[in-house]
Amino acid sequence: MDNTELIKSLSRVTPSKIVFLVIDGLGGLPHPETGKTELETANTPNFDKLAAGSICGLADPVGPGITPGSAPGHLAIFGYDPIETIVGRGVLAAFGTGFDLKPDDVAARGNFCSVDESGLVTDRRAGRISSDKSTELCRLLDGQTIDSVEIFVRPVKDHRFLVVFRGQGLSPDVNSSDPQQTGVVPLEIKPENPGAGKLAALANKFTEFAGKTLAGHHPANMVLLRGFSKWEPLPTLNDIYKLTPAAIASYPMYRGLAKLIGMDIVETGTGVDDVFKSLSDNYTKYDFFFLHIKKLDSAGEDGNFEGKVAAIEEVDGLLPKLTGLQPDVIVVTGDHSTPAVLEAHSWHPVPVLISSRWCRTDSVSEFSESAFVSGGLGRLPSTRIMPLAMANALKLIKYGA
Amino acid sequence: MDNTELIKSLSRVTPSKIVFLVIDGLGGLPHPETGKTELETANTPNFDKLAAGSICGLADPVGPGITPGSAPGHLAIFGYDPIETIVGRGVLAAFGTGFDLKPDDVAARGNFCSVDESGLVTDRRAGRISSDKSTELCRLLDGQTIDSVEIFVRPVKDHRFLVVFRGQGLSPDVNSSDPQQTGVVPLEIKPENPGAGKLAALANKFTEFAGKTLAGHHPANMVLLRGFSKWEPLPTLNDIYKLTPAAIASYPMYRGLAKLIGMDIVETGTGVDDVFKSLSDNYTKYDFFFLHIKKLDSAGEDGNFEGKVAAIEEVDGLLPKLTGLQPDVIVVTGDHSTPAVLEAHSWHPVPVLISSRWCRTDSVSEFSESAFVSGGLGRLPSTRIMPLAMANALKLIKYGA
Repeated sequence: MDNTELIKSLSRVTPSKIVFLVIDGLGGLPHPETGKTELETANTPNFDKLAAGSICGLADPVGPGITPGSAPGHLAIFGYDPIETIVGRGVLAAFGTGFDLKPDDVAARGNFCSVDESGLVTDRRAGRISSDKSTELCRLLDGQTIDSVEIFVRPVKDHRFLVVFRGQGLSPDVNSSDPQQTGVVPLEIKPENPGAGKLAALANKFTEFAGKTLAGHHPANMVLLRGFSKWEPLPTLNDIYKLTPAAIASYPMYRGLAKLIGMDIVETGTGVDDVFKSLSDNYTKYDFFFLHIKKLDSAGEDGNFEGKVAAIEEVDGLLPKLTGLQPDVIVVTGDHSTPAVLEAHSWHPVPVLISSRWCRTDSVSEFSESAFVSGGLGRLPSTRIMPLAMANALKLIKYGA
Repeated sequence: MDNTELIKSLSRVTPSKIVFLVIDGLGGLPHPETGKTELETANTPNFDKLAAGSICGLADPVGPGITPGSAPGHLAIFGYDPIETIVGRGVLAAFGTGFDLKPDDVAARGNFCSVDESGLVTDRRAGRISSDKSTELCRLLDGQTIDSVEIFVRPVKDHRFLVVFRGQGLSPDVNSSDPQQTGVVPLEIKPENPGAGKLAALANKFTEFAGKTLAGHHPANMVLLRGFSKWEPLPTLNDIYKLTPAAIASYPMYRGLAKLIGMDIVETGTGVDDVFKSLSDNYTKYDFFFLHIKKLDSAGEDGNFEGKVAAIEEVDGLLPKLTGLQPDVIVVTGDHSTPAVLEAHSWHPVPVLISSRWCRTDSVSEFSESAFVSGGLGRLPSTRIMPLAMANALKLIKYGA
């Protein structure tokens, strides 16, 4: 019996409520001039107070040294083994754009690219065309039916798009058409097993159609497809934890991930304050809430140290709207660190705090990476956060006689 | 090679002695009025002194968030994977009552219950009859032979009893007869695989016999059986660690568990002081001692904060009787936490200290949950305690060239 089976066998429904405040890219690194991280620089009286009444620690979403993408980072927080649980790039794009993927669909991630008159790839990303341009081109490609298979095309972001093949007997086991270099033609898509011949033929026909349709649209005059994948349903949070969960996230990708594991998607606005307002508006309807805050990660990826500091201060100012609801358990953590000085996701462990009546408070009273080193949770895999949250909500029965 | 195989390959016999002082329910939570846990409230000069010369930490018996029963909690302390190592409820009852279970026996846990004139269950626990009454009724049921299979019946506690079926070709893969609700008849016991037909038939015949025999004994006028299990011998502490181990425990269940993993059971009294006296009396005969102290757990389960404080102070007062023997390694830990404020076992990690000449002392000098957070052992699975104890006793050779 693995750990998930164990948790599943111990979970029970109770009226207690759990709120996960997931601050994307939460952890950071010191500014070279001040020696202080974004969290250490920010003035966060509300987080400090919450930390003082919590048990704190540092969590590794995937493992020490591993820099998580957003999907494994979030899967880990919700207790899914981020190494065992592979979500294909196509499926992720589908859920990320809110596309209603069916179990028999095959999804792929596409790039618009540039080819010369001989068909050789000259730019694998078509000069990173804008999302607006991409949206316009996707309309040209969308809605085809080839060999009785419907094909859907949706923009993702910049030169990226989603293709979904809907029909019977489609296997996703085919290679990518992206040659990973310029000066060569796109690769022919071939089946990697006998059952995938149908999809390979379709994907090649779609590529040919795209080439003809986009002929006059240089730099975006061809497509490259990769990450062919089917949606293999995951056990939901209700299956494992018997929770009735809601996701409050303004970005499509996180709503998609939440939907993938069975959360209800609550409508919200684009502001940080909207997330807290939506929590309050829907508080009676669910017993588990996933609140996603994107702003720190965006600033971190832009290398905007001050912007990340300002973002955490903004969240701190809104925190009383969450604590005021007095949930039985509050968890604050992130899906990965995004230090502004690295301008990227990083492998550094992420601060995590658990606040509950039963948390066994430690001596930490400052919301920062360095303070959390001496927290009572110590250093733990992010996959352990859910069992701890469930335990603190008194939603797990005793194991064994 | 899993960890147990590795440890087994490295273990050696030496004259050094290891004493495990297992304080059941050791960890706690703060009292709401004082903000201090039971251990923080208690005056424990001897434990504080021992901690000062030890390496300390916090251990998870099963995993973060998982509240252990006594069986998995103890199995973990002795290095057995508490998730892989399942001890059936029937077997546990058998070992717990000191019944001499044989490898071919099938054991089950029984409940006396109440049924009405139509045979519908009205109380699954027969009004929780006393152990004395239960003992009297068990005598009525004990000693039958059905289809050449001997049937033993022994009281456990209150309405609970043990049934053992002794014969050839008995498989325990049958369902429980407990319907888990009132107003219905007990379930028929059915085989879950073809080989279990014989036992299922026997168990139904025994139930029928019990119903007739107990007819005039309302509220205990029927039985429900569950947890049918065979004793699947575990590797003993001698098999894995080459130890000659003794258990000193006043409660039958812990003696049973110790016997299950090959410990000699040393006779002792019911007082905390008896445990220490028995250690002293038997100190030359063994190289490993498991001392079990029940009193803290009992007080914790009763919600008796002051009682738990008094119990730890009592143990503290007796500690010099252990340290005075100067064992090479002393381990102090528990099988789980039992905070008085929760009145139950809990998921909180359990303090653990290892005292030896070679332990690499840390800065901890107070015997408490919060002080142990910053101990040199950090936070570790309880299954890692045995290898550390063995290493500190210089009983593990080097691994690899």
